[in-house]
Amino acid sequence: MVVSQTNFAWATLLDVGGRGRLHDRVAHALRAAIRDGRLPEGAAVPPSRALAEELGCSRWVVTEAYGQLVAEGYLAARVGSATRVSWSPGSAPTTAREPRPPARPKVRYDLAPGLPDLRAFPRRRWADAVRAVIGSAVHYDLDIPDPAGHAVLRTTIAQYLRRSRGADAGAASVSVCAGVSDGLVRTCRALRAEGIADVAVENPGWGRLRDAATSAGLRVHPVPVDDDGLRVDDLARTPARAVVVGAAHQFPTGAVLSPDRRAGLLRWAREVDGYVVEDDYDAEFRYDRHPVAVVQGLDPGRVFLLGSVSKTLSPALGLGWLVAPAALTPALRSANLVAAAPPVLDQLALATFIDRGWYDAHLRAARRRFRARRDLLLRTLDDLVPEGRVAGTAAGLHVLLHLPDHVDTPRAVRAAATAGLRLSDLDDYRAEESGGPSRTSSGDGGVARSAGRALVLGYGNIGDTEIRPAVALLRDALGLPGRR
Amino acid sequence: MVVSQTNFAWATLLDVGGRGRLHDRVAHALRAAIRDGRLPEGAAVPPSRALAEELGCSRWVVTEAYGQLVAEGYLAARVGSATRVSWSPGSAPTTAREPRPPARPKVRYDLAPGLPDLRAFPRRRWADAVRAVIGSAVHYDLDIPDPAGHAVLRTTIAQYLRRSRGADAGAASVSVCAGVSDGLVRTCRALRAEGIADVAVENPGWGRLRDAATSAGLRVHPVPVDDDGLRVDDLARTPARAVVVGAAHQFPTGAVLSPDRRAGLLRWAREVDGYVVEDDYDAEFRYDRHPVAVVQGLDPGRVFLLGSVSKTLSPALGLGWLVAPAALTPALRSANLVAAAPPVLDQLALATFIDRGWYDAHLRAARRRFRARRDLLLRTLDDLVPEGRVAGTAAGLHVLLHLPDHVDTPRAVRAAATAGLRLSDLDDYRAEESGGPSRTSSGDGGVARSAGRALVLGYGNIGDTEIRPAVALLRDALGLPGRR
Repeated sequence: MVVSQTNFAWATLLDVGGRGRLHDRVAHALRAAIRDGRLPEGAAVPPSRALAEELGCSRWVVTEAYGQLVAEGYLAARVGSATRVSWSPGSAPTTAREPRPPARPKVRYDLAPGLPDLRAFPRRRWADAVRAVIGSAVHYDLDIPDPAGHAVLRTTIAQYLRRSRGADAGAASVSVCAGVSDGLVRTCRALRAEGIADVAVENPGWGRLRDAATSAGLRVHPVPVDDDGLRVDDLARTPARAVVVGAAHQFPTGAVLSPDRRAGLLRWAREVDGYVVEDDYDAEFRYDRHPVAVVQGLDPGRVFLLGSVSKTLSPALGLGWLVAPAALTPALRSANLVAAAPPVLDQLALATFIDRGWYDAHLRAARRRFRARRDLLLRTLDDLVPEGRVAGTAAGLHVLLHLPDHVDTPRAVRAAATAGLRLSDLDDYRAEESGGPSRTSSGDGGVARSAGRALVLGYGNIGDTEIRPAVALLRDALGLPGRR
Repeated sequence: MVVSQTNFAWATLLDVGGRGRLHDRVAHALRAAIRDGRLPEGAAVPPSRALAEELGCSRWVVTEAYGQLVAEGYLAARVGSATRVSWSPGSAPTTAREPRPPARPKVRYDLAPGLPDLRAFPRRRWADAVRAVIGSAVHYDLDIPDPAGHAVLRTTIAQYLRRSRGADAGAASVSVCAGVSDGLVRTCRALRAEGIADVAVENPGWGRLRDAATSAGLRVHPVPVDDDGLRVDDLARTPARAVVVGAAHQFPTGAVLSPDRRAGLLRWAREVDGYVVEDDYDAEFRYDRHPVAVVQGLDPGRVFLLGSVSKTLSPALGLGWLVAPAALTPALRSANLVAAAPPVLDQLALATFIDRGWYDAHLRAARRRFRARRDLLLRTLDDLVPEGRVAGTAAGLHVLLHLPDHVDTPRAVRAAATAGLRLSDLDDYRAEESGGPSRTSSGDGGVARSAGRALVLGYGNIGDTEIRPAVALLRDALGLPGRR
């Protein structure tokens, strides 16, 4: 009975099923038909009474649905005329969807750095902490978060850093952030607001730290690292008034900043009226002695301290901290107006996790595990890849494996990936290799470059029993002459 | 027996107690004494044998502690000479801590906009979702998060937006972000990478959206809003090629963008080869009819869609989404290399919460609650503040209360705060009042300004029984001539 300019089968409009109230289902079905072109622009829809009869529903259902689609712009109603479809695909490439990114190659063994043991994440205790917090939080804890972080976690982190890392920190100087990259972006914005436009970074070092500094609008100057850590004397050859440094265990060389260099670093900061940004990367893991306390404690007016639980619990938690000099706290706050703190329940869960002693217990167990795993890795390398030489302090979650100059490490990384082994080339962490905005001419890239071929082997996220087969695959990938 | 240049009471070094291994405690106590000046720079520490005797511990304990402090830079050892304190406070203003920010004034009644009912947060079900997720996540879910968001939540959000908001979204076009501000920062960075430097915003509107656009490096152009929403024709008078708009329920006017303006908005975007950024603010709450579907569904190639659970569950969760045109997804990814997705467990918890139907159930209950509360507020205003006129669609979490021109609204807001009532002045959301970078000369600020005195009253975060006493306080604060 329904008359329409189109061949649309009005009676089948609701055949697709669906849930919800009837007028919503009619609107949904009409919208879908308009979108996929079954009801083209200009086509008249039936009078409401006619469609209602066809569908066996009340007229109200249809007028509601039409009204909805008029409000949304899919239909247009004109007095004295039929209601018509007013929408066409236009510029909308509804089918030209971005292709799904290719699946990551399957990783059987992970010897790349940067991850703790994800299988050892303390699930039960973390769940207990979250449950306790959801039960005990007051309703205004659910308000818009304090951008500097919840006071409870700031207090807990300040205590932890004083107790475990020798930091000079109080709740007022701590900001909670999403991790070290986020903390560095915030720090760099504050530095920029203070008139600092140039920052030095370690070379080799984390590319994502260079990216963070660049994204905050700073120019980045790579400075070489040797066996005693950052070559502090070279800072004076850059225009930088701030430097990002890993003092306890440099990534990727594994060097510990020597006492002389620590003193030199602070001297330099005072001379240029500048700042040190200490990335306390994986400092909790030292196997031959107690971890060295942070540089920040020596001069809290000159040193920012960055840390996170990404290398101790999991990067998926997105929880870190930033300790700032008191004089720069206002700049830090006002330069980061848009930055939000991590979700409040997560913040409170971490505070509970630390306060109940679970974090310390987790670190103790992890330290034992990683120490044994590092020893096992070194023994296995000595056995299967004697051509290599391992460098780096007995600390952290990675070692540096120096290789003969003739080894083609990029090719080895690719060959290993094909075999399901994830590896990292030291060259990937050199600033002069990264190109783009991180590249400057001021760093003495040649020095770091001349260190030769090496792989950065992470042993955080690999099982003990996987180490021998992984190293055997590594040997194959390196293409070293026959052995075994 | 211990000889030292200082009067330091070495025998009491460990009297402060503490836990941990003995050499750690000795190091900790020495570090504290150096820091607080009891052991000044240059002071010699006792030979290790002498201090060990004094403390009744092994010499190894003392040499370990000294070694630790030498590595950290607090002590310096020279061959043939005493080990001495090598640290002084220097530039460190250890005591000049930033003063704690003043405590927020005590809020008895909250009639400010922007919050859902925090007392009604579904704690049990959220805790159940988190527990389920912690139990079921695979260990590589705990790896570094995909910056675009976890595939599971992206799929769930795409389904939800198609089903509930009429959006044209697939998992590939959805990014998970920390909320609408974060989503807007990401969008603006992508627009900037596409060569767009100017963005229009609603006036009045959210100041934090203006801040987000500014922080991403865009120039902001306020465009007036009237009873039909954004005055779309005025866009052509700005150099903007993008506009941020609340189509379903504009903040703070409560206007719904009319069908003509929806069409005009998309026409404008095609003409300038630009983009619409749709802030789907509190669109889930419509009380007189089904919520209007998003503009994004009309032209997904021209419209970004931003949403979050901040107005439905809690801003403390820090979870939102961003649907981008397929052609701009690469720009979106590459312009936000440093931005991290929210914590993975939270993402998976939200997916579980939605997939189990708990989000829909929560929204239904909230809709009933807010509809009744809005009616109650309107009746109470009619009764106690008949001089006011309420504007805005029956939707969302706020109404606009227009007041006679002679009312001094800033003074009323201050007076109310003193009495424990939180209020918001409409003028606080006008771009020409904000000064700073948001201020441009292109917007026709005068029109919005001439709308006169008004308060933005939020009824999300106030109990039903609190409404009458809160409105009574409001009447007092307004200083209207006697009544009741």
